[in-house]
Parts: sequence; structure tokens; C-alpha cells
Amino acid sequence: MNKWFLGIDVGGTTVKMAFLDEEAVIHEKWEIKTDLTDGGSQIVADISNSVAKKMQTLNISAERLIAAGIGAPGYIDVKNGIIVEAVNVGWRDYPVSAELSNQLGIPVYADNDANLAAAGEKWKGAGDGAEELLAVTLGTGVGGGIIAENQIVHGFAGLAGEIGHITSVKEGGARCNCGKTGCLETVSSATGIVRLAEEALAQDTVSELQALKKEGEQVSAKDVFDAALNEDKLAVSVIETAMDHLGLALANLANSLNPERIVIGGGVSKAGEVLLDYIRPSFDRYTIPKISRETSLHIATLGNDAGVIGAAWLAKQNGLEEAGSR
Amino acid sequence: MNKWFLGIDVGGTTVKMAFLDEEAVIHEKWEIKTDLTDGGSQIVADISNSVAKKMQTLNISAERLIAAGIGAPGYIDVKNGIIVEAVNVGWRDYPVSAELSNQLGIPVYADNDANLAAAGEKWKGAGDGAEELLAVTLGTGVGGGIIAENQIVHGFAGLAGEIGHITSVKEGGARCNCGKTGCLETVSSATGIVRLAEEALAQDTVSELQALKKEGEQVSAKDVFDAALNEDKLAVSVIETAMDHLGLALANLANSLNPERIVIGGGVSKAGEVLLDYIRPSFDRYTIPKISRETSLHIATLGNDAGVIGAAWLAKQNGLEEAGSR
Repeated sequence: MNKWFLGIDVGGTTVKMAFLDEEAVIHEKWEIKTDLTDGGSQIVADISNSVAKKMQTLNISAERLIAAGIGAPGYIDVKNGIIVEAVNVGWRDYPVSAELSNQLGIPVYADNDANLAAAGEKWKGAGDGAEELLAVTLGTGVGGGIIAENQIVHGFAGLAGEIGHITSVKEGGARCNCGKTGCLETVSSATGIVRLAEEALAQDTVSELQALKKEGEQVSAKDVFDAALNEDKLAVSVIETAMDHLGLALANLANSLNPERIVIGGGVSKAGEVLLDYIRPSFDRYTIPKISRETSLHIATLGNDAGVIGAAWLAKQNGLEEAGSR
Repeated sequence: MNKWFLGIDVGGTTVKMAFLDEEAVIHEKWEIKTDLTDGGSQIVADISNSVAKKMQTLNISAERLIAAGIGAPGYIDVKNGIIVEAVNVGWRDYPVSAELSNQLGIPVYADNDANLAAAGEKWKGAGDGAEELLAVTLGTGVGGGIIAENQIVHGFAGLAGEIGHITSVKEGGARCNCGKTGCLETVSSATGIVRLAEEALAQDTVSELQALKKEGEQVSAKDVFDAALNEDKLAVSVIETAMDHLGLALANLANSLNPERIVIGGGVSKAGEVLLDYIRPSFDRYTIPKISRETSLHIATLGNDAGVIGAAWLAKQNGLEEAGSR
């Protein structure tokens, strides 16, 4: 009988769950709605009921399930399994590991959702098992997760991996939500790409993106990528600028952390392999030759499943260790 | 009877050794000359003889000594305890852990000397036990070591922590030994400070450093710091530039790794606390507010002993674990 691990990914809209075995095979994957009433106080009971029902349906014995991992957006006290703050969910100083462990009768380990997405890609996605991995999420913002020595790096206050706030523009950069200016997120996220495009369009007359503007539409990052594929000069220049900043930031992280693989996910990564064609030249220019030769860049492959798979990995890593030390 | 650990720091001139206990108390510290003949093939026998003699002199029983750690400059295959290349010592593909373990009869663990200096400062120096620490060495070059989750971060090919090759000057930077241009090392090392000063002096007539030039002397980094203390404008501006680059690099690492402490060592750090006064403003400017508030910067306190102390820490970490799992 192979051992199973439960991965849980709590978001503001849905809670995703999955049973995986030690070999990262998904045996079942499902989701429920996130109940946001009363500060999210029903969520753990909902998860527990849903898991119990699913195990019954699948006719799974309780002994098969070894441990669970749970990811949520926000600050997590990983050592104690406490959600310090998950704004979208409503949890605050919430001992999620203890509560859920009580209900499920197995150990539960918690971590930040971006870290678990990195772990998911590492285990079953584009990371291909790399024990040294850097994952970047390019969406509305820029997030990330760092795996070193086969462990998630958390840092002193759990902020490690928040690479979106690397300073990319030293002087005169755009203001960031974090309070400072010139963050990577202000130039390389979807939002950043749109901002750079809007700024360029204000000085331009010939870009094909002007047609959208005339129709009163908001230009999206996807529009800019599409126009760049059409060799629209303005669009190409905007993407080059955005990805040059990203290439420098990733190069400097690679010069310092020496990951085996860098995995790029999030909405912007839907542009596909062409994204790497933009990032690679500046990455190579700013890395020392050995790092440039030996570090591979990849587009993430797990999409929205990365978090739940990473949560199951967390359960496996910690759960097997704990079982072993008993 | 408390347990002892042997730390060994192999350099091109001397091999430093020390016995430390679990509480990081140094019970004995000594050094021998590094025998560079025949590709360093006598070094392990010299170490082993010297340790045996020292244990006899101190009347130490063999059971007290649990494990040894050894540091060397260059590329180390940490998992297998092999010195891939240590140019200054002559070792190449040399299985130092196995060889020395054979002679001493205890487990021997090897790591890069810069990583072990970081571990030493963490254990007994300015790191004050921080489990998340970044150490920087400002000397002829810029080196470093990263401790995350209480472990040394090595990276895929053992290059992690080589932060001197972060790209600080995107365009038109000076050429670096690594093959690219604009590395942190070209602007923030002692060599970089001298280069910046020489460049500025070529355009200047009033700096007090001109007197040295007139005497035909080479300006040193210390001269520049001394002149800056005298409020020599050129010198102040050079140090500000060099430390602004360092502040940005450290800020970006702190934004990504969230260390508790950053420890600055190496020859340039002999300038003392004034160095932090130069680094802190740009560090604060380029870090997100929470990181800026919570990360402390310190001057290293162990000097040349950091490596041998870090090597003993490595022995303790791994040696106790191994003893525990037996």
C-alpha cells in the first residue's frame, strides 16, 4: 500500500485539494468554495468534511494518509503552523496546523502559497526535482520562492522569496505598493508591462497598440506580447525593457544562490517559450560564465495546480521525516 | 566530559587549527606552515601529526574529539568531501575528508573557506547565532557566504555566496576577473575603491590624496578611508559610490533572502563602524520597509579566526547529527 499525502491550497475563492503519493502521482484532485464569512472560521471544518467524504467515496483507509500540507497567501509562521495574516482569506493569528491536525488526525504543515508553488514545480513540474531552484511568478505583481539544499528558504520573518521588491530602477523608478520605488514588480509584472506600454504610447503614433487606445480599451500585457510577436517596434521595446530588468534580477540571484533551474510562472508566463528568448540574453550578459552555462530557464508547467502539489510535497518532506524519527 | 570539535582552515601560507567545544569555547588554537611541495600532498599528514601531538600535550583522550571540519579556498564538492580545485594550496580532485578521516579516526567534513568564515561569524562572532545570515568579505575581491535555515547554502555547483559577481554597473562597468564587466567586486572591494579613487584623482587637483601620488606612492583603500575621515571631498565621494553599490547589492539580497543579520568582514572592514554609516543609507533606501527595519548590519569580529571557528561549527553540526543517527 503506497502512502498518500494531502495537499491543500487555500485561496480567496476556492480551496484546492489533492491526494498525491510519494512519487508525486495525483490520485484525486478537487476543490470547494472558500467560505469567507466570520473571518474564515468555517474553512478548516469544510476542508475536514470534504476530505472525510472524499476518502469514503474512494474507499481509502485512514492509515494510508500520512500527513497534510496547507498553503495560504500571506505571512505564515511556518515553525508553529500559524497564519499570521492572510488578508484574502480573513485568517489572522490563526493556528491552522493545530486546528486542521485535530480534525484530520494527521500532522499538518503550513507554508506560504508562493513557496509551495515553487516546491510544486520543483517536485512535479518544470523544476524536475532540482534541489536548488528559484521560482518566479509574473502576474499582477512579481513573487517567488527559493529552494536551497532541498528546502524552502523562509528567511528571518518569512519574507524570503519576495523577489518582486528587488530594486531594478535605482533613480526615478515608479512607486511600488511596498512603499519604495523602482521595484522589479514595477517593471516586469503584467502591471509593469502595461505601465511601460502606456508611457511609450503617449510618445508614439505608429504602434498597432494605438488602435486599442482609440477604441478606448485598456492595453493588457497580453496585447503587448501579441503586438511584439507582430514585430511592433514599441511593443518589442517595452518587452525588452521589462525582461532586461528581470534578466538582471535573476542573474544577480543566480550569481548569489547558484540554482540549477529557474522556473517562470504566473499569468505573464502564458506568453510561453518566447518569454525565455527575451530573458536569456540579459541573464547571460549579467551572470558569470559558469553560471550562465549551467543554469537553465524554464516556463512553469503546473499552472494553478502548483500550490496544491507543493503542499503535498511539504507533507511528504515533513511527514516522512517525523514518521521516521518516531 | 564535554565534546570537542576540531576546526581546520587551510590557506596558502598556514594551516590554522583549533579545538572548540559545543558552546564555541576555544580550548586551543595553533597553526603550522602549509607545505606546498608536491601539490600539497603532505598537508594532511602534517595536520594529522600536529593534532596527535597537540592532543598528547594537552592530555586529551581520543573519545573527546567527535569530528573535524576543514575549510579550503576554491571549489569543494561538499557532499563527498572532495577539493575539486584549491589553486593556492595545489589540491585538485583531492578527497580530503576521506584522507584526513583515515588518519584522525573521526568523521571529517569539508567546505569552502568563505562559507566557513560566514558560519564562524554566525556561531561565535557578529552573527550572534542568527540562523539566517549573510556574510560579506571585502578584501582584494568581494566574497561571501549565505546561511539559510541554519545551513550553509551551496547552490548547484557550490558557487552560492559568490556575491562579488552581482552586476552593479549595468553599462560601461570595469572588467572583472570573472570575464564580465561591472561586478560588485569592481566597485566595492579594496581594489575597486582604489580604482575609483585613481579615476577621480586623474580629474582632480585639490584632494589630499594628490600628495601621495606626487610622492609616487600607490593609493590604498585605507588611504581613501583616512582621507574621507578628514572630509576630503574626493575621498568621501569615492567611498559613497563604492558603498552605495554595496548597499544596493545587500538590499537586493536582503529583499530576496530576508536574513536576520548581515556581517561585513575582510580587510576593508577594518575601517570599522564608519563603514556601516556609509552602507546603511543606501541599504535602507533599497529595501522594503519591514526588511530595512528588521535587518541589522554588523562589522565582523573574528578576523582571521572566523574560518577555523566555522570549520569547528561544521564538525559540530554534522558530527553530532551523525552520532545521533547511529
